[in-house]
Amino acid sequence: MSTLTGGARPSNSKASQRRRVAIAEATLTLLRARDAAEVAVSDIAAEAGVSVATVYNLVGRKDQILAGVIDGYVHRVSVELLKQPPATELVQAASVVITTAVDAALSDPLPLRAVVREPGTLNLAQTKGMGVDQLIEPRLCAAGASLSEAREAAQLIVYAFWGTIVSWALGLISDARFRDDAELVTKRLVLGTFGTERQGG
Amino acid sequence: MSTLTGGARPSNSKASQRRRVAIAEATLTLLRARDAAEVAVSDIAAEAGVSVATVYNLVGRKDQILAGVIDGYVHRVSVELLKQPPATELVQAASVVITTAVDAALSDPLPLRAVVREPGTLNLAQTKGMGVDQLIEPRLCAAGASLSEAREAAQLIVYAFWGTIVSWALGLISDARFRDDAELVTKRLVLGTFGTERQGG
Repeated sequence: MSTLTGGARPSNSKASQRRRVAIAEATLTLLRARDAAEVAVSDIAAEAGVSVATVYNLVGRKDQILAGVIDGYVHRVSVELLKQPPATELVQAASVVITTAVDAALSDPLPLRAVVREPGTLNLAQTKGMGVDQLIEPRLCAAGASLSEAREAAQLIVYAFWGTIVSWALGLISDARFRDDAELVTKRLVLGTFGTERQGG
Repeated sequence: MSTLTGGARPSNSKASQRRRVAIAEATLTLLRARDAAEVAVSDIAAEAGVSVATVYNLVGRKDQILAGVIDGYVHRVSVELLKQPPATELVQAASVVITTAVDAALSDPLPLRAVVREPGTLNLAQTKGMGVDQLIEPRLCAAGASLSEAREAAQLIVYAFWGTIVSWALGLISDARFRDDAELVTKRLVLGTFGTERQGG
């Protein structure tokens, strides 16, 4: 697909990158004000100051745009985690990822809530693993877990985190409960996987 | 609301009960063939052989009908569990509930998948706790857990089970993986909550 406004340009040109950022920011702005079902690609294009065709060319369909919102949160979590010293203890190695993810969610809750409530997005986002397991796994390894143990534990933690996010996004649990339960279920899964005797190393 | 076909009758009359069963069965039949979004209340009424007004009177709106599908699965799980001897061991007490729930899901997967993919339903169903935590909690107590420990563990297990169900309903994990992971995350959470030293009592 080629358009007058940018679709024919190389997708990694500076202009394209600028437009992708504008589209991502426009999406967040709109999702802070209304539900995902009420946001059309044309609304996003108008808010970003680009054509509808540019949105399709540079980012994709609406479900891909919304999945990109989750990717944005995961990206912010991964940057935030790099500012912290690596944990040497297994429970801490996993729970720092989850508490940082909860902080990112609560710092700008409306777009994430809107996206999690939209089932098509979950599909796309989960296919990519949401990225959270890929943040947990190396940290567990660095704290002494084997790769296979770390991979399994990370997957189980993501299932549980997923359950807390959905419960929070649907308004079934408060922000405080989301934070507490997400951290608690992570700790319990690490303890259940690695056992108390291995804590601290 | 009152109709010629039954809405004005006492809602617990035998005729009403028969119609509720017919509506529930019609819903399952339709959800085995197509997505929840493609099933209208009028389709359910036609399949059940009742009027649309009767469906609204006896069961409610579409989201309430769909939430009833989940209640139906939980009901079958609770009946199935009563046929089994009570577990005296904590891991077994919790995991028998989850494996029985997985068996119920896999024995008639399409309606559950359809409903879980429909976000409004999750909202209603989760508000009622899905019932699974209420199946786990007393079994943990019977196996020696305190009420507060059992309540907390049941909630954490439901978060994780929720994550596995959503992943399965969206087609991200296979039936076999759903079964294995749901059981594994439950075991790990019980071990993480109660510790290995208390297993067996």
